[in-house]
Amino acid sequence: MTMTPTDDSSTPTQPNTAVSMRCLTKHRAGTGLAFSDGHAIPAVGPRDVRIKVKKVGICGTDRHIWEWDQWASDRIPVGVITGHEFVGHIESVGSAVTKYTIGQRVSAEGHLSAGVDYNSRTGNGHIAADTTIFGIDRDGCFADYIVVPEENVWPLHDDIPDKYAAILDPLGNAVHTVMSAGVSAKTVLISGVGIIGLMAVTVAKAAGASRIYCTDINPPRLELAKKLGATDAFDARDDSWIEKIRAETHEGVDVLLEMSGAPAAMNQGFQALRNGGTAALLGLPARTVDFDFNAHIIFKGCTVLGINGRKMWKTWYQMEQLLLSGKLELDDIITHEFPIEDFEKAFETMISGDGIKVLMNVN
Amino acid sequence: MTMTPTDDSSTPTQPNTAVSMRCLTKHRAGTGLAFSDGHAIPAVGPRDVRIKVKKVGICGTDRHIWEWDQWASDRIPVGVITGHEFVGHIESVGSAVTKYTIGQRVSAEGHLSAGVDYNSRTGNGHIAADTTIFGIDRDGCFADYIVVPEENVWPLHDDIPDKYAAILDPLGNAVHTVMSAGVSAKTVLISGVGIIGLMAVTVAKAAGASRIYCTDINPPRLELAKKLGATDAFDARDDSWIEKIRAETHEGVDVLLEMSGAPAAMNQGFQALRNGGTAALLGLPARTVDFDFNAHIIFKGCTVLGINGRKMWKTWYQMEQLLLSGKLELDDIITHEFPIEDFEKAFETMISGDGIKVLMNVN
Amino acid sequence: MTMTPTDDSSTPTQPNTAVSMRCLTKHRAGTGLAFSDGHAIPAVGPRDVRIKVKKVGICGTDRHIWEWDQWASDRIPVGVITGHEFVGHIESVGSAVTKYTIGQRVSAEGHLSAGVDYNSRTGNGHIAADTTIFGIDRDGCFADYIVVPEENVWPLHDDIPDKYAAILDPLGNAVHTVMSAGVSAKTVLISGVGIIGLMAVTVAKAAGASRIYCTDINPPRLELAKKLGATDAFDARDDSWIEKIRAETHEGVDVLLEMSGAPAAMNQGFQALRNGGTAALLGLPARTVDFDFNAHIIFKGCTVLGINGRKMWKTWYQMEQLLLSGKLELDDIITHEFPIEDFEKAFETMISGDGIKVLMNVN
Amino acid sequence: MTMTPTDDSSTPTQPNTAVSMRCLTKHRAGTGLAFSDGHAIPAVGPRDVRIKVKKVGICGTDRHIWEWDQWASDRIPVGVITGHEFVGHIESVGSAVTKYTIGQRVSAEGHLSAGVDYNSRTGNGHIAADTTIFGIDRDGCFADYIVVPEENVWPLHDDIPDKYAAILDPLGNAVHTVMSAGVSAKTVLISGVGIIGLMAVTVAKAAGASRIYCTDINPPRLELAKKLGATDAFDARDDSWIEKIRAETHEGVDVLLEMSGAPAAMNQGFQALRNGGTAALLGLPARTVDFDFNAHIIFKGCTVLGINGRKMWKTWYQMEQLLLSGKLELDDIITHEFPIEDFEKAFETMISGDGIKVLMNVN
Repeated sequence: MTMTPTDDSSTPTQPNTAVSMRCLTKHRAGTGLAFSDGHAIPAVGPRDVRIKVKKVGICGTDRHIWEWDQWASDRIPVGVITGHEFVGHIESVGSAVTKYTIGQRVSAEGHLSAGVDYNSRTGNGHIAADTTIFGIDRDGCFADYIVVPEENVWPLHDDIPDKYAAILDPLGNAVHTVMSAGVSAKTVLISGVGIIGLMAVTVAKAAGASRIYCTDINPPRLELAKKLGATDAFDARDDSWIEKIRAETHEGVDVLLEMSGAPAAMNQGFQALRNGGTAALLGLPARTVDFDFNAHIIFKGCTVLGINGRKMWKTWYQMEQLLLSGKLELDDIITHEFPIEDFEKAFETMISGDGIKVLMNVN
Repeated sequence: MTMTPTDDSSTPTQPNTAVSMRCLTKHRAGTGLAFSDGHAIPAVGPRDVRIKVKKVGICGTDRHIWEWDQWASDRIPVGVITGHEFVGHIESVGSAVTKYTIGQRVSAEGHLSAGVDYNSRTGNGHIAADTTIFGIDRDGCFADYIVVPEENVWPLHDDIPDKYAAILDPLGNAVHTVMSAGVSAKTVLISGVGIIGLMAVTVAKAAGASRIYCTDINPPRLELAKKLGATDAFDARDDSWIEKIRAETHEGVDVLLEMSGAPAAMNQGFQALRNGGTAALLGLPARTVDFDFNAHIIFKGCTVLGINGRKMWKTWYQMEQLLLSGKLELDDIITHEFPIEDFEKAFETMISGDGIKVLMNVN
Repeated sequence: MTMTPTDDSSTPTQPNTAVSMRCLTKHRAGTGLAFSDGHAIPAVGPRDVRIKVKKVGICGTDRHIWEWDQWASDRIPVGVITGHEFVGHIESVGSAVTKYTIGQRVSAEGHLSAGVDYNSRTGNGHIAADTTIFGIDRDGCFADYIVVPEENVWPLHDDIPDKYAAILDPLGNAVHTVMSAGVSAKTVLISGVGIIGLMAVTVAKAAGASRIYCTDINPPRLELAKKLGATDAFDARDDSWIEKIRAETHEGVDVLLEMSGAPAAMNQGFQALRNGGTAALLGLPARTVDFDFNAHIIFKGCTVLGINGRKMWKTWYQMEQLLLSGKLELDDIITHEFPIEDFEKAFETMISGDGIKVLMNVN
Repeated sequence: MTMTPTDDSSTPTQPNTAVSMRCLTKHRAGTGLAFSDGHAIPAVGPRDVRIKVKKVGICGTDRHIWEWDQWASDRIPVGVITGHEFVGHIESVGSAVTKYTIGQRVSAEGHLSAGVDYNSRTGNGHIAADTTIFGIDRDGCFADYIVVPEENVWPLHDDIPDKYAAILDPLGNAVHTVMSAGVSAKTVLISGVGIIGLMAVTVAKAAGASRIYCTDINPPRLELAKKLGATDAFDARDDSWIEKIRAETHEGVDVLLEMSGAPAAMNQGFQALRNGGTAALLGLPARTVDFDFNAHIIFKGCTVLGINGRKMWKTWYQMEQLLLSGKLELDDIITHEFPIEDFEKAFETMISGDGIKVLMNVN
């Protein structure tokens, strides 16, 4: 047989004899996902690896895709396999793969780039101009198999268990936010303790924050934030906390981690930030925000960091260090696990707020 | 005579025998300033120096005070001596002064702080919580004499001529903006080439920017920007320049220096900034701005710096280095000099736009 | 009475009626210190405060002075009151003092500078060219009273107890070293766990280090290092630990904190540092070191930081944050307290190695 | 024909019909190089590109190889094709190449890494643990063709002429040193103005250094340094220049760029560096150095950076910016060009010191 660069013949030791697989696809321009057990197994290009998926996480983005909101209908191609948080094992490697071997336990970075852009060549591939994301722009990991370029593979340390390895993508968002701002020996305010905000609490504590304040409008989440290490946690609807924090600090916290995307939270957060402080913005406002640049940024002399994704690969190494330190408390954040066949129950649990981080077991 | 800590008896070698002085005061809650030649000479506290003023600059802020706009009527106490850009010689030192001696040629930082605040003790006195500014909150330099705490004095290098020494305050704004963003071997966009924007052009060139683009809606200023070192300069009203710049760079400039405060310029500037770039904001918008945080900051992964004043004293040392390097071209920016008695003509020249930086000679 | 700027008459509310005080002086060019109870109480200059000393710490430097080694005989003026680690209360303020008031509980930075030097004006007063240190170049704190310029005062947070407040000087060395290197989510090697090395262990842990390795040739100190948070601790005399650490990390630790000054430890430490890592050097070698710049620094592409003193005042604020976080474990490091009259026993305890940090109670 | 992943059949559009090529090899364990015109053309692996070489530069390293000194005899495999500075055009691409196409004008980074190491995944591939260098550890560019992995290719901007494109490797050393230290608005001392030291002069000037001092023991090179932008240049053998520089600066330069590797120059350079300054070390001492860490690094509170290679790819982008700015003056540094057949004359010119940077034209 004559080999061509893009076919799938290059798996010398463990040829995959199955011909179809299970997966969840965005089957129509409307709500929900569809389960299929007859989808073609994706082919492996010469520089790709094919990974047998073991465990996946449901992201807030997957909820948007499920609910088919404006963003989803604008961006998501109908028919795509969704999902971008996972752990699995390499089942097949392309003919030109040099870095990994069959059998390795791995996760992968979801941002794919051609690697010729300024940002992708200088350690910022997560904001490269030509980036696409699997599970969004191309087939993802809610499936028996996912194919990714070898450049995107993250080999897993043996001491990191599967349930944490499955959620390195969102944990990486939290780590990138915390480490970009820098929290060591600093006071920190986290506005918004959804999944990533809660992760940010335990990450900030492990990374050396001296005191951590949280705000949200969900009292049980505020309680959980305290359990995870927050010094204090406030209901954002009564803004008397701002003066309290300013009095306990040098007229404001050193660092604001904005994880809600709510304009009111942004305004409060910048009021609670000291002059010369640093704000890292991860939460996405639903629309433009009417913002007081003079009071919040210019007169304040502060630094604002736009955060998305995770740095390839600085964030991943930091995350590995934090996990190996034993300081991260993730078990209260990972509330549920379901078999992938129970995906409807899994999504309901997540959407209802009964669950926080919900996993699905695939293999 | 019994000395008290705050009186004025401590000028051993050159006692000042004059009893009154000339100055410009904000004499009423309305437009203009009034000239007086019978104002009391200010007393010298134990830690103060009194400086005989030689040459002063008119700032955009002085124009706001002259025109008595909303900001001015909210902030400026009627009766105050205005002005905060100057050069002069120390004429008298307080009883507890240790750092300077009579006769030294000096300028001074206009931001005064008690020195007990977090920011003022960590090199960021310009954003200390208790800062006041002379010429705004207390008597300034449009006068024969000004009194400042010795901590605020900047001793002048002999090789820096008076006409530059008189404008270190606004030049410091430009230097602080440029050096905070970092321009060495980078592409830079300066939006708004008023006085400080023009200074930023020559500062950015001297500080090693590889290419400098400018935008404004004033064609003669754009021409001057090119003369001072801008690679190209565009009329902001036709925004086709954005694509041109993006094509000539790595899909956007490395650095945006926003010096206009115009919301349209902010939007354009962030569009022209590459992913992962740095924006330093100095221009003050007249009100809140409806801003697309997702497109401009969060997805872009950029860094935004709020800039006001100048760092004490890092910026002043940087400014001294830049001046001594001989690379700054300020002569085309300093367009006029008048005797202080001709202050009305000086302000008219500045307000009409005929002049850019206008100086007044006092002594 | 007519006041003169330099006399001691400016203490309006609590005039000090005592005329002499107790202190320890370096009474001769030889070993030991002498106790005196008839020393003149130091006068307060206009910008000074006089502090009634409550508790002091004995520094390694004080041991050099006691033992009168080469360094001490070269530097220390006979007759000086020694000591530079203390806590006390302001008892008197000079006529021009503006920042503090009588009764405040304070410590002070021991590095005194005229405040006109480049470094002292840019947040690096600890390395200003004209710096002197109290307890070394001028009278120190082993006394009932010490006089310091108000610029050197550090007001104490109510929640920081005296026994910690008395040792902010050496704790500041540890904090400056740790925070300059940056340890958040990083692996750290501390070579040398004397007083400051042990403090660095608890500081590095509190500041977010992921794993902390220690080396020394003193087994009990290595055990204490583990108790304070070290992941592992090795006897430096068997260098097989180097390969162990390199195997457990990315071919070396991210950060080396060198606190021994021993050439062998420096060589080992740089071998255990990964390419591109950061080494912070605090330990002072007794003489020049024969060093392999190629292997240890240049080919390794690493960053080396020279550390002495503490940053004024960034380090002090970081230290306050770390203390308030409740994460620092100092009680096992502060092993003994004696009345100042028992100073010989105190020094013996410290010199013998029976004690680690030894305090003396003065008032 | 059946294709295997590592063979050379994948060059669809411009098949190379030649079977042998010209090159310079290290033909024996002794001095000199040998010219061959019958060397096999190297095969292209699936992820490689083959480049037709146009112009090459002779590096100081090539001189060591020519002279067969201790370093060369320890490291260089006899038979290797030498050379690692070049410009050429892609003549053939491997089957799995995605980033580049035949015909592109390119240079390449000489440090090759498997891309799985911590440093190579975090933007520091130049100090990755598994790095090899072409022209040293494997065949280089003194040949009609060189094969490099596509990850190592640098596509050239049209406005950069061949003679500069051929020497991006050493220019990158200079740029990496200058940009790592940071020279914008700073005073700089360059100790050693060999090829890279001279490049550093023009790079530092273009990057915004305020004043540049140079030292060397070669008077004509010192003159050239002044022509390229040095403010002043001193014969290092009379060290009175140290006090002169200290008097003209804030008791020492802000930045030391050590490019000589001479222990005496290192000692002088650190004496001329101000407290708190930054030293970047590129020059390789021939052996260990007896060094005063206390005076030069620890009490001085300075930062020392080990520099080798160039950052992939941050340095390359900075270099492109500097070249496009039109500020670099390289023509006086590139003194000679020879056809590759005249390689003996080329090496003689370089070794004798008659030439500085010597190029050879290959195709």
